[in-house]
Amino acid sequence: MHAIEFIQDIAVIMLIAGMVTILCHRFRQPVVLGYIAVGVIIGPHTPPFKVIQDMHTIQILAELGIIFLLFALGLEFNLRKLSRVGVTAFIAAFAEIALMIWLGYEIGLAFGWSAMDAIFLGAMLAISSTTIIIKALSELKLKNEKFAQLIFGILIVEDILAIGMIALLSGIAMQGTVNAIDAVATLGKLSLFMIVSLVLGLIMVPRLIAYVAKFESNEMLLVTVLGLCFGFCLLVVKLEYSIALGAFMIGAIMAEARQLHLIARLIEPLRDMFSAIFFVTIGLLFDPAVLLTYALPVIVITIAVVVGKVLSCSLGVFAAGHDGRTSVRVGMGMAQIGEFSFIIATLGSSLKVTSEFLYPIVVAVSAVTTLLTPYLIRLADPLTARLAVATPKPVAHVFRRYAVWLEMVRPEGDRAVIATIVLKILLQVLVNCALIAAVFIAGAYFMTNIRESIGTWITSEDVQRSIVWGGALFISLPFLIAMYRKLHALSMLLAEVGIKSSFSGHFTAGLRRVVTAIIPVASIVGLLYLIGVLSKPIRPSTEWLLVLMIGAAILAAVLWTPCIRLYAWLQILLLETLQRASDDTR
Amino acid sequence: MHAIEFIQDIAVIMLIAGMVTILCHRFRQPVVLGYIAVGVIIGPHTPPFKVIQDMHTIQILAELGIIFLLFALGLEFNLRKLSRVGVTAFIAAFAEIALMIWLGYEIGLAFGWSAMDAIFLGAMLAISSTTIIIKALSELKLKNEKFAQLIFGILIVEDILAIGMIALLSGIAMQGTVNAIDAVATLGKLSLFMIVSLVLGLIMVPRLIAYVAKFESNEMLLVTVLGLCFGFCLLVVKLEYSIALGAFMIGAIMAEARQLHLIARLIEPLRDMFSAIFFVTIGLLFDPAVLLTYALPVIVITIAVVVGKVLSCSLGVFAAGHDGRTSVRVGMGMAQIGEFSFIIATLGSSLKVTSEFLYPIVVAVSAVTTLLTPYLIRLADPLTARLAVATPKPVAHVFRRYAVWLEMVRPEGDRAVIATIVLKILLQVLVNCALIAAVFIAGAYFMTNIRESIGTWITSEDVQRSIVWGGALFISLPFLIAMYRKLHALSMLLAEVGIKSSFSGHFTAGLRRVVTAIIPVASIVGLLYLIGVLSKPIRPSTEWLLVLMIGAAILAAVLWTPCIRLYAWLQILLLETLQRASDDTR
Repeated sequence: MHAIEFIQDIAVIMLIAGMVTILCHRFRQPVVLGYIAVGVIIGPHTPPFKVIQDMHTIQILAELGIIFLLFALGLEFNLRKLSRVGVTAFIAAFAEIALMIWLGYEIGLAFGWSAMDAIFLGAMLAISSTTIIIKALSELKLKNEKFAQLIFGILIVEDILAIGMIALLSGIAMQGTVNAIDAVATLGKLSLFMIVSLVLGLIMVPRLIAYVAKFESNEMLLVTVLGLCFGFCLLVVKLEYSIALGAFMIGAIMAEARQLHLIARLIEPLRDMFSAIFFVTIGLLFDPAVLLTYALPVIVITIAVVVGKVLSCSLGVFAAGHDGRTSVRVGMGMAQIGEFSFIIATLGSSLKVTSEFLYPIVVAVSAVTTLLTPYLIRLADPLTARLAVATPKPVAHVFRRYAVWLEMVRPEGDRAVIATIVLKILLQVLVNCALIAAVFIAGAYFMTNIRESIGTWITSEDVQRSIVWGGALFISLPFLIAMYRKLHALSMLLAEVGIKSSFSGHFTAGLRRVVTAIIPVASIVGLLYLIGVLSKPIRPSTEWLLVLMIGAAILAAVLWTPCIRLYAWLQILLLETLQRASDDTR
Repeated sequence: MHAIEFIQDIAVIMLIAGMVTILCHRFRQPVVLGYIAVGVIIGPHTPPFKVIQDMHTIQILAELGIIFLLFALGLEFNLRKLSRVGVTAFIAAFAEIALMIWLGYEIGLAFGWSAMDAIFLGAMLAISSTTIIIKALSELKLKNEKFAQLIFGILIVEDILAIGMIALLSGIAMQGTVNAIDAVATLGKLSLFMIVSLVLGLIMVPRLIAYVAKFESNEMLLVTVLGLCFGFCLLVVKLEYSIALGAFMIGAIMAEARQLHLIARLIEPLRDMFSAIFFVTIGLLFDPAVLLTYALPVIVITIAVVVGKVLSCSLGVFAAGHDGRTSVRVGMGMAQIGEFSFIIATLGSSLKVTSEFLYPIVVAVSAVTTLLTPYLIRLADPLTARLAVATPKPVAHVFRRYAVWLEMVRPEGDRAVIATIVLKILLQVLVNCALIAAVFIAGAYFMTNIRESIGTWITSEDVQRSIVWGGALFISLPFLIAMYRKLHALSMLLAEVGIKSSFSGHFTAGLRRVVTAIIPVASIVGLLYLIGVLSKPIRPSTEWLLVLMIGAAILAAVLWTPCIRLYAWLQILLLETLQRASDDTR
C-alpha cells in the first residue's frame, strides 16, 4: 500500500507514547512531558534514531491536535462560568498576563534578541497550562478546594485573553511592528467577529445539533460536529485569524448545546489521539544542542516564570479580597507554562517571524516548570506560614486595612441592582453595534458580487451603491430600533437615579427629560457616524444617502412593531439556548 | 498556518458529509451511500467543483479509515462467536464466496478484461457488506429474528475468508499469475502467521490492556490500544500482508480483553471520522463518465450479484438443514457488496494491477445493490410463498427427504463427544505445529544478526548454524513434547474406539498397542521432516544434526516434567483470557 511510511510513523509514535504514558503514570509525572520526551527521542536532532519519514502528514495531524485540544477546551468553557468566576479571576489573570508579557519582552531584549522574538517570548510566558494544573491538582486530591476553584476561574479568563493575544500576535507578525492603533484595530475587529459569531452561533448551532441528535446516531452527530468545527476553523483561517481561535470559539458555542456531554465523550478520543501527536511533534522539533547554547536564558526564564507568576497571581488574588493562604496557593499553582506556549511557538515559527532557538527554550522551560508544579503547590502552606511570621507589622497592618476597605466599597443593595441593569443594557447595545457593523462590513465585502449580479439591469454605480447600502441599512433596522429602545430605557434609568430632585429642585423633571432625549439621540448619531466610516466602500453619493436615510426613517416608523417582534424573537432564541443548557447540564 | 489546504479539504468533506448524512437519514438510505455521493460531488471528475487540494493527506487518512473500520470489525468479532455460528454459516459462506468469485471471474473474462481484473472482480463480488446489512435489518426491525442471527454468522465467516482472500490477492498481484502451489504456500504462511500471532496476542495483549486499564485513564488506554493496533499493522505490512488483515486481527485479539466495551467506545469516534473520509475518498475516485462507457458490465454484474448471492446463500443455508423461508430470507439479505469490495478495489489500484474502470463499476454496483437490499429483504416472504406454490411436487419431495436424511446423519451421543475431543486435539496439534514452525522460521530470519553477534567467538559456520538450529530446537521442546503427548492420547482414543474386540478377537490388545505407538512416532517423524524443510537456511551438517538430535532427546527426557509444566502454564494463560472475556462481557 502507498502509505507505509506514514503507518510506520504513527505506529512508532503511538507505541512509544503508550509505553511512556505508563512510565509517566508510574512515576507520577504528567503525560504531556512523556509525549514531548518521545518526540525528542525519535526526533531528528538526537541519535540514534531518525524514524519519522512523512513529516508533512505528521505535522498536519499535529495541527488537528491543536484544533481538537482547543475545541475540547472550548467545550469545557462556557459563558455562564465566565460570568460566575467573578472579579478575582479577571484581576489575577490581567495582572499575570501583563507582568509576564513585560517580563518576557524585557528578558528577550536583555539577551539581545529581536523585538519580535521578545514579544513572542512574552506571550509564551503569559498563559499557564490548564492541562498540567488539572493533572497536578487531581493527583494531589485538591481539585475541590476553594483555591482550586479560583485557579480554574483564572484559567478560563486566561483562555479568552490568550485567544485575543494569538489574534494580536498574528497581526503584529504580519505587519512586523507593534503599533497601538493597529493593535486596537485588530482587537476591535476581533471583538466584532467574536460577538457576531457568538450571537449567530448560539442561535443556530445548538438547534442544529439538537435536530441531528434526534436521529440518535453517534456517527451523524460526530460528523455534524466535526463539520461545524472544521468549517468554522476554515472561516476563521480565511479571515486571517488563527485556527486555535476558531476551534476554541466553536467549542464554546457547542458547550451551550443540550448534547454537550455526548459531544465531549465523542471528541475525547480524537483529542487524545491528535494531541498526543501534537505534543510528540513539539518534541520532534526540540533540539537539545540548542539548549546547551542557551542554558542561561532557560535558567533565567524559568526563574522569571516561577517568580513572576507566583507574585502576580498571589497579589492579584489578594487584591481581589482573598486571604493570604488562598492567594499564595493560587500563585504557586499557576507557576508553569504549557500548551498555549507551544501553540504560540508554533504560530511564530509557521509565520517565520521568530528565531529557531525560541522553540527548544520554551519546551525546556515548560518541562522544568511542569515538573516543579506539584512541589510548588505542596510548598504553598509552609511558605504562607513563613510569610506570616516574616512580614513586618506595618505591612501586615496595611494588608488588613486593605481587606476592610475592600469590603466597604463593594456595591450592595439598590446600587448593585442598578449597576447590574446598566451593565446588561450596555452589553446589549454593544452586541447590537457589533451586529450592525457586521452587516455593513459584509455588504462591503460582498459588494463586487452583488454589483455583478445587479449590474446588467442597473448600470449607474451610484444607484448600485445605494441599493447595497440601503439593503444593509434595511437589514440593520431591527437592531437599530432595538438599540434606540435600549438606550432610551437606559437614559430614563440614569435620569431617574442620577438626577435627584434634592439636588436640582424643580428643574428635575426638565433635566431628566433632556437627559432621556440626549443619550439615545447622541448614540444614534454616533452610530451613524460609525456606519459612515465602516460603509465607506459602499457609500453612495450624499443625495442618495439622504434619500435612503429618510426612506429608512419612514420604514422604521412603519415597521416599528414588526421590527421589535423580530428582535424579541431572536433574543428569545438566544436566551433559550443559554437557559436550556443551564437547566439541563449543570 | 501551513496546513490551510488540508483544513479546507477536511472542512469541506465534513460539512457536506454532515448535511448528506442528515438527508440520508430523512430518506432512510444508508449513510455510506451518502458519503460516496459527497465524494462524487466534490471529486475531480464532476463539475463544478474540484475542491480537494491536499489529496496526499486525504488518502492517508482514508487508509486510517480502513484500519479503524477493520479494527472495529475485529472488536465485534470473537473466537467464541465463530465456534458458535456453526456449520450453517460455514457452508453458506463457502458456497457464496466460491460461486461469486467464479461468476465475477467469468464475467470479467467474458467482457474481455485481463485475468487480473477478472480475479479482482470476483473477489470484490464475494463478500457482502456487514455495515449495510446491519443498517437494513435494524431499520426493518428484524435484527433479532432467527434468520438475522444466521446472516450475522455468515458475515463473521466471510470476514475471516475475506482476510484470507486479501492476503492471497496480494500474493497473486505480486507474482502476476495464479499458481496452485503458490496459493497453498501463501495460505499456509498466512495461517501460520495468524495462529502464532493469535496465540501470542491472546496471551499478552489482554494482560497488557488490563494493566494499563488499572490507571483508569482513558487517554492512556487509548494511546496503548492505538500503539498496539498501529504497531501490529506495521508488522503485518512489513511481512507483506495487507494492513486490513493486521487491523482485523489485532481487533479480534483485543476483543478478548475485559475492557472490550470501553475500547470499542473510545474507538467508535475515530472509526466514524476516518471511515467517513474513506468512503468519501471512494467517491472522489469515482468517474461517472467511465460509468456510461461501462453501463452494460454494471447491469450484468449487478444482476449477477443479486441472483448469485440469493441463490448461493439460500441453497447453502437450506443444505445445512434450515427451512425454505429462513433460507430465502438469508439469501435476500446477503445480496449486496460493500466495504470489503472497496478495500479490495483500493488494494488492486494501489498495487497497480487492476484497470481504472473497475473502481467506478464496483462503486456503482455497490450503490445499486445497497439501495435494493431493504426491498429484497421485504420481498423474501412473498417469494417463499410463490416458490412453495410453484415448486413441482417431485422436487419438493426430494427437498423433504433431504431434510429427513440430514437429521439422521447428524452425529449424536458418544460419537459426537468423541468427534469433539478428536477435533480439539487436532486443533491443539495444529497450533503446536504452527508455533514450532514459527520458531524455526524466526531462527532463519534472524540468522544473520545472530551470527554477527556470535561471529567473533565462533568462526566455523557449521558451529554457528548448529547453535542457532539447536537453540530453535530447544525453544520448541515444550511444544514438541506437548504435541507428542496429545498425539499419544489421540492414538489411544482412536485405538480404543476404532479397533473393536468383536472384530479383531484376541489380536485386539496387540493391534491397539501398535496403533498407539505408530501415530505419535509417525507424526514426530513427519514433523521433523517439516522442520528440516523449514530450517534449510540454518540447518547444520548431518553430523551436527545427529549430535543435536541426540542432545535434544536427552534434554527432553531430563526436562520432561518442567516442559509439561511450562506448556500447561502457557495453556492456562490462554484459556484464562478466553474464559474471562466470556464471563465478563457476554
